[in-house]
Amino acid sequence: MNTDQLKNIDQQKFDRVCTIAREAMMIQTSADTLEWDERTRMPAAAGDYRASQVSLLRAETHKRRTDVEFGGLVEELYETLDDKDAHDDVTATIRGLHRDFMRDRCLPTELVRATSEATVRGQQAWDAARKADDFSLFRDSLQRVVDLKRESGNLIGAATQRSCYEALLDEYEPDAKVDQLQATFDSLRGPLVELIAAIADAPRQPDVSLLERSYDIDAQRAFGTRVSSAIGFDYQRGRLDETSHPFCTTLGPRDIRILTRYESNWLPSGLFGTLHEAGHGMYEQGLRDDWFGLPPGSYVSLGMHESQSRLWENQVGRSKAFWSWLYADAQKTFASNLSDVPLDDFYFAINTIRPSLIRVEADEATYNLHILIRFDLERQLIEGGLSVDELPEAWNARYQNDLGVTPPSDANGVLQDVHWSAGLIGYFPTYTLGNLASAQLYDAAEASLGDLSKMFERGEFAPLAGWLNEHVYRHGRCFSGLELVENATGKPLSAEPLIAYLRGKLAPLYGI
Amino acid sequence: MNTDQLKNIDQQKFDRVCTIAREAMMIQTSADTLEWDERTRMPAAAGDYRASQVSLLRAETHKRRTDVEFGGLVEELYETLDDKDAHDDVTATIRGLHRDFMRDRCLPTELVRATSEATVRGQQAWDAARKADDFSLFRDSLQRVVDLKRESGNLIGAATQRSCYEALLDEYEPDAKVDQLQATFDSLRGPLVELIAAIADAPRQPDVSLLERSYDIDAQRAFGTRVSSAIGFDYQRGRLDETSHPFCTTLGPRDIRILTRYESNWLPSGLFGTLHEAGHGMYEQGLRDDWFGLPPGSYVSLGMHESQSRLWENQVGRSKAFWSWLYADAQKTFASNLSDVPLDDFYFAINTIRPSLIRVEADEATYNLHILIRFDLERQLIEGGLSVDELPEAWNARYQNDLGVTPPSDANGVLQDVHWSAGLIGYFPTYTLGNLASAQLYDAAEASLGDLSKMFERGEFAPLAGWLNEHVYRHGRCFSGLELVENATGKPLSAEPLIAYLRGKLAPLYGI
Repeated sequence: MNTDQLKNIDQQKFDRVCTIAREAMMIQTSADTLEWDERTRMPAAAGDYRASQVSLLRAETHKRRTDVEFGGLVEELYETLDDKDAHDDVTATIRGLHRDFMRDRCLPTELVRATSEATVRGQQAWDAARKADDFSLFRDSLQRVVDLKRESGNLIGAATQRSCYEALLDEYEPDAKVDQLQATFDSLRGPLVELIAAIADAPRQPDVSLLERSYDIDAQRAFGTRVSSAIGFDYQRGRLDETSHPFCTTLGPRDIRILTRYESNWLPSGLFGTLHEAGHGMYEQGLRDDWFGLPPGSYVSLGMHESQSRLWENQVGRSKAFWSWLYADAQKTFASNLSDVPLDDFYFAINTIRPSLIRVEADEATYNLHILIRFDLERQLIEGGLSVDELPEAWNARYQNDLGVTPPSDANGVLQDVHWSAGLIGYFPTYTLGNLASAQLYDAAEASLGDLSKMFERGEFAPLAGWLNEHVYRHGRCFSGLELVENATGKPLSAEPLIAYLRGKLAPLYGI
Repeated sequence: MNTDQLKNIDQQKFDRVCTIAREAMMIQTSADTLEWDERTRMPAAAGDYRASQVSLLRAETHKRRTDVEFGGLVEELYETLDDKDAHDDVTATIRGLHRDFMRDRCLPTELVRATSEATVRGQQAWDAARKADDFSLFRDSLQRVVDLKRESGNLIGAATQRSCYEALLDEYEPDAKVDQLQATFDSLRGPLVELIAAIADAPRQPDVSLLERSYDIDAQRAFGTRVSSAIGFDYQRGRLDETSHPFCTTLGPRDIRILTRYESNWLPSGLFGTLHEAGHGMYEQGLRDDWFGLPPGSYVSLGMHESQSRLWENQVGRSKAFWSWLYADAQKTFASNLSDVPLDDFYFAINTIRPSLIRVEADEATYNLHILIRFDLERQLIEGGLSVDELPEAWNARYQNDLGVTPPSDANGVLQDVHWSAGLIGYFPTYTLGNLASAQLYDAAEASLGDLSKMFERGEFAPLAGWLNEHVYRHGRCFSGLELVENATGKPLSAEPLIAYLRGKLAPLYGI
């Protein structure tokens, strides 16, 4: 900690900005609670009023975060920092609040309003277009969203010395550099395509149908709760519920709620969905309570968040060691489905790799190809290399080229994701960043803790969870996501650990 | 409607105050949603943060309702009304907002803050005193609450030409007069005491033990849901959940949530609790959506609210006709408990009348005696005729005199209710007001609709619900509660209908 500069900080002003930021978070988490309720409990007829409540609370949050007095104090505090890049909590608080305020301040109210309107309409148009399987119904709305996001990116980019796309990316993955990302993704693509092709031609293939038997929902619920608790999700400070689009939401420092969806004829949906959300939840539960609502007590980036969900879902949850521990329980819980299935067959089935059209249904290897396509296309859309009209064709061409499949129609192609309609441009790459980081962090944890498989076979997850807490969670936003990875692993983020992990697991399975 | 004066209203100013009032309600219902969640779903560890969120949202609500600009506009609008007592929606809006603002404005911020603190501490001290069964632990806190409420009552009373106690009562039952209330309650006491004494000496007594058999909770839940839906609680615009202290809460115009508590060995708890809360819920569901958050779309008083819960719980739910319709279902649902029990025995058991120590466990006849004691004692506390030190003894003397029972200790006596510790002085009489009104409204409905029993025997509740909607719900706060009763029944509120109802039902049952 740089203690010298802390002497210069006006304590009263620091306390004042912290109070305002914490109050803004209290209102934000109130709105989040209302949305959680909307997605789980609310009576059907109550939607309109709920929307107006949430929108009022969001406006109240925004008002506090963009308040002129608040911004002035934040700027003043920021100017008193000699070392603006220090990693102590106080500096990180001031730097984080300053960054957030400056991003907001770049954008004229009129642009914020127009973007908000365009994305509400965009999502409606997207929904209608997807249902009608007709991209033309979405075209104008998408054009409007892209134009407005480009305008925002240019304004923020000019103020922060970033390119337009990098400024948009920076919202989700602060301080990430597009060129670096591009280079890392490029080094991932080749080996990944090669591995997936080899798997497609492999002589051994799993029997997926055993996951499609009729799995009792109550049993799935109890099993998922038991397993998520065993890996470390704390039900004293959290809940698991059901919803149509799974997510994790933080309603308070000790109130982390994960949501999943069970499908009777597809066991992985509820099972890995629960592990995935539990991973997100454990990150949130590992943040420091006493800094809740302030940068040191906040998650650092979407990529790091995703690294935690993926790590518990894939590196842990799809490992042989994990199932060596758990399979007897699974066979007992789902006796009529699994009692005749050997562990090896089950393990092979949950590691099925197969190119497909839909991102959210993709396996852990092909998933990244879906992301790389979107990353390239959205950059071109923003930078002007690709027009909205050319998008569907470019999409299909890339799917044929990268994954060897061509969408039969836009509903299963360019219209499958909500993100762009909602203005979430720069968001997609964080998914693959998360996958890369999960593999690299896992390797470093193992190098430090010894053979993790041996622990999983005994149902011991606390050492891994503790290591992640130590190297990721407890730092909040005191470092950037990429700094955290480098500090924790001794190397900058790269594609190699993920490739090595996938090869190491899949090659023996498929006999390639 | 007095259309003349509406021409004088400045539409822009009217719209402005409505917007502010509606926004205040949106934040209030957000806080209520957080509290509903706290009582039903929230993880145990999340309590502290939730309390700070709710308190911030309550402060935001209060800020809007006491905003100087808002109050100025309300006063201006109020002054333009020639007929301040008219009953159209616009006049009622202005009059209601004016009343609420004026009540708030009487109270200095310092007094509000001190009261809020004293009641938080008061409830803690009450809780500790009750657990330790030691009134002395509560004595000082109660003294403080009484002193502060007296100060509030005096300030509001001076500004509104009311006595101190009437000013406090007016918060819960607007425009009620203490002298009238006293006279009505006095005329209730004698006949009630006489009836209860006759019942105690009656040769025929019910077998209550049949309600104490082990009733399956899941079956109770399904049964309660079915029955509350049948009487008219709309599950498209509401929910039923479970909690330790049942209540009804309005989270939006189409989001009314009722909560109940099932006890395996006491069927009436869940069953009549559900009917009671469904009655509250139906009142809320009958308010006009388009005036939500404004006086014409708000319940008029606690007494009228209680009249609806009591009417559906008692006049309907404990009637012979109701069970003639429902008992076959009950016998099927609780076959192992009820298949050998004749309807008459069940009906007698749910109409057990027996003096007891605890208000919330009291039957519909003795309940009112519990209230009359509290009404008298809290008036004396506020008016100075009784000191806090004298309270426990006065309580016990009254219980012996009025109900013939003496609390073995204060935990079962003066410490049983949370109300006074929470500053809810003037609240108790609304319970009996509700009981009186329920009987009088029921008689008027029957006079208008014909024999309601015949309808209940066929499971028809819509005519009664429709009549209540027409005469109570849809009026919101356009009339006072006592005006509503008089308009709907053609007579001022009196004790006669309740006495006649109780005698009419209980005399034949007990053979007196």
